[in-house]
Amino acid sequence: MTASPSEPTAAPASPGPHPHPRPRPRADRARQVAEVLRRQIASGAFPSGVLPDERSLIADHGASRNTVREALGVLRDEGVVERRQGVGTVIRRRTYEHTLERLTGLAETLSAYGRVSNEVRVADVLRPPREVARKLCVPDDGQVVYIERLRRLGDDPLSLDLTYLTTDIGRPLLDADLAGRDLFSLIEESVGGPLGSASVTVHAVNADPGTSALLGTPPGQAVFTVERLTRMPDGRPVDLEFLRVRGDRLAFRAELGRGTGVPDSPTGDNR
Amino acid sequence: MTASPSEPTAAPASPGPHPHPRPRPRADRARQVAEVLRRQIASGAFPSGVLPDERSLIADHGASRNTVREALGVLRDEGVVERRQGVGTVIRRRTYEHTLERLTGLAETLSAYGRVSNEVRVADVLRPPREVARKLCVPDDGQVVYIERLRRLGDDPLSLDLTYLTTDIGRPLLDADLAGRDLFSLIEESVGGPLGSASVTVHAVNADPGTSALLGTPPGQAVFTVERLTRMPDGRPVDLEFLRVRGDRLAFRAELGRGTGVPDSPTGDNR
Repeated sequence: MTASPSEPTAAPASPGPHPHPRPRPRADRARQVAEVLRRQIASGAFPSGVLPDERSLIADHGASRNTVREALGVLRDEGVVERRQGVGTVIRRRTYEHTLERLTGLAETLSAYGRVSNEVRVADVLRPPREVARKLCVPDDGQVVYIERLRRLGDDPLSLDLTYLTTDIGRPLLDADLAGRDLFSLIEESVGGPLGSASVTVHAVNADPGTSALLGTPPGQAVFTVERLTRMPDGRPVDLEFLRVRGDRLAFRAELGRGTGVPDSPTGDNR
Repeated sequence: MTASPSEPTAAPASPGPHPHPRPRPRADRARQVAEVLRRQIASGAFPSGVLPDERSLIADHGASRNTVREALGVLRDEGVVERRQGVGTVIRRRTYEHTLERLTGLAETLSAYGRVSNEVRVADVLRPPREVARKLCVPDDGQVVYIERLRRLGDDPLSLDLTYLTTDIGRPLLDADLAGRDLFSLIEESVGGPLGSASVTVHAVNADPGTSALLGTPPGQAVFTVERLTRMPDGRPVDLEFLRVRGDRLAFRAELGRGTGVPDSPTGDNR
């Protein structure tokens, strides 16, 4: 049996119940190449900012010239790369990876890549929506601190963060450097100790026009919406955040174990 | 000081360096309401499938009628809800949450909601792309098993999964029930023990036309692209997957600790 390239077109090399006599559409093969390239770009595999030339890509992926071209077209349409005359295919934008395995702030994660600054749009004390009150264990007629920030790496918007804090935790922050710092580290300085755990849920949605305008993306850009409920070490919820994060600038990364996870969220409603 | 509703419009209730004398645009306030509602819908807070009426939403969110209407408009544009004459605002689609804190398969996670079935598009032995060979520690001229499956919950496409397996792990799977089962459980049955850990990276991108057609979404739909490298308990990588997951059907959930994460990926290139 000859080692076939990565373009399966005929019957399986091993006898089995899944014969595939029809040739695979080029779009399918191009997608295979594009997935691998996107990950290589995101992980910093091409430090020069230029992709290998077509001949190398053909060899690396065991793919035809047309398949490689179509794969590059997919990444071009996504705004990841562009053709530059006399240079080749260059990376337009790095996507930075934000860890999900520890509770870290954005500035903390991205410090190697540049300065994160925050435009403070709201910093106020207000009565929370009922659902927010419930999650923060605040009485329905109680108050919370609400902070809304547009976060940038250098000049580029990264995320729009809506944060509700219990007043004991939030009030001291109203006088803090909200424009320059992560809330996590501000809170930890303020309480004099580390935060506990957090429950995080990540959705992918198409940005509404208002969010697109704020984040400086085309309308409908894929963005993450993240809900993060952070607790003190004793389990008391203190910080509920709703983040909208540009999908073309940030990705999330986690290390998982099989069967070694922590139990479901104690509130029982984050399923 | 009167407890204001969740629409901060004037100076902060607490003296601080962040006065906000200008009224907030309604789009901002609507976004606040929409974020909370989206999360409630995703977590199953409205089991009847109908949202509370406008009056209740106004009270729950401390928002004006116009703000609530605009928030519902955002969710309608995202395809999450629709107005139904004589009924109210109904949920069009549940987004199911897939845990990121343990290594679980899709069918395993979604068993409570319906049957996951897989259309096996490819199941073959082939020579992998160079980058895939590197990650699976296979020689450049070696082979891998490639499995491509379109996964559905009931009749609805959920994800397109491209999987590269080392041949020792993958070959026995070519004769297994790839149409009905999660790969994780098939592998564990085949090797007679549990898998080890995995490194996962999650991006949000707008689906290319080919992916949209396969997943049954409008062009440009926000989808997750997930790379997952799974290892045996001894650390040997055996399974590299590239998943495209409909953002309107699945979300990811994780529990994080502050400073309790596992160290960076041993391959060192998944940052």
